[in-house]
Amino acid sequence: MSFNYDDLVVSIPDFPKPGVVFKDITPVFANAEAFASVIDEIAEHYAGKGVTKILAAEARGFMVGSALAYRMNAGFVPARKPGKLPRETIREEFILEYGADSLEIHSDALVPGDRVLIIDDLIATGGTAQAMVKLIERADAEVVGFGFFMELAFLKPREALAKVTDADVFSLFVVE
Amino acid sequence: MSFNYDDLVVSIPDFPKPGVVFKDITPVFANAEAFASVIDEIAEHYAGKGVTKILAAEARGFMVGSALAYRMNAGFVPARKPGKLPRETIREEFILEYGADSLEIHSDALVPGDRVLIIDDLIATGGTAQAMVKLIERADAEVVGFGFFMELAFLKPREALAKVTDADVFSLFVVE
Repeated sequence: MSFNYDDLVVSIPDFPKPGVVFKDITPVFANAEAFASVIDEIAEHYAGKGVTKILAAEARGFMVGSALAYRMNAGFVPARKPGKLPRETIREEFILEYGADSLEIHSDALVPGDRVLIIDDLIATGGTAQAMVKLIERADAEVVGFGFFMELAFLKPREALAKVTDADVFSLFVVE
Repeated sequence: MSFNYDDLVVSIPDFPKPGVVFKDITPVFANAEAFASVIDEIAEHYAGKGVTKILAAEARGFMVGSALAYRMNAGFVPARKPGKLPRETIREEFILEYGADSLEIHSDALVPGDRVLIIDDLIATGGTAQAMVKLIERADAEVVGFGFFMELAFLKPREALAKVTDADVFSLFVVE
């Protein structure tokens, strides 16, 4: 049975800008039992799929991706904002809910044969996740699937992801 | 026996500015065995200390702190750059190696009775860690200790930490 996360997610009207209702999930992660449940649920969904690397987006994605890498005996690869990684990178630009941005990974962070799980705390329009798919494909690695704590279904992220991959999408807390 | 991390840490001269030798530890985290060893070594050092929360600094600290929270059955609390957290926060300013900055936590993220482990990928001058100590004390919680993957000992971070706390400092990879 899944953990009941409802009591721990806090809705904040008009953050970060008027008209947006921000869902604060930090209380979920601050609760040891809830946090473990998030990680275990995603790990169990992808058990036996041969995941070798977790790819997670800066910065909130690291909060889920790091624990999942440990839980699944996988390596952890950060997708970072431009200029943060010191060596040769590959970069993808994307449109996100509140503007445009880019993500980079080190050119040698993923290798052919890697089976990669894309992890983030939240999927909204899907732009960040689309960029991570492209980074994985440029490294000749394979996308196993996606794991998110929260899915803002009203922004239709699954339609966005279906444009770039048929990989599995798994989320724990869906906002319709 | 400790994992030999030497072959996975890459030195980058003149990054992010001339004269600084940046130690890139992302290959350690991308290696599943090395990453698990980092987390297990810190967790084993603090086993039995009653840790209830992991406090980690944005963004690279999340890469270690999240996995450690899972491993130690603790809650995960992010210390974030100003403006990222949507609810009432407490804030501490600090000086770091490349400039000045601030960190915030939600006012309710730590509570009296919490026993907190401060985690970061790296300790340099210790400014970030000092700020986290102050945030924990303002929340009337207790600092159990510090866990870092890398310690830049030539910057004397232990002297900086000793000015604000006598809590234990543990690091895995010391650069003299």
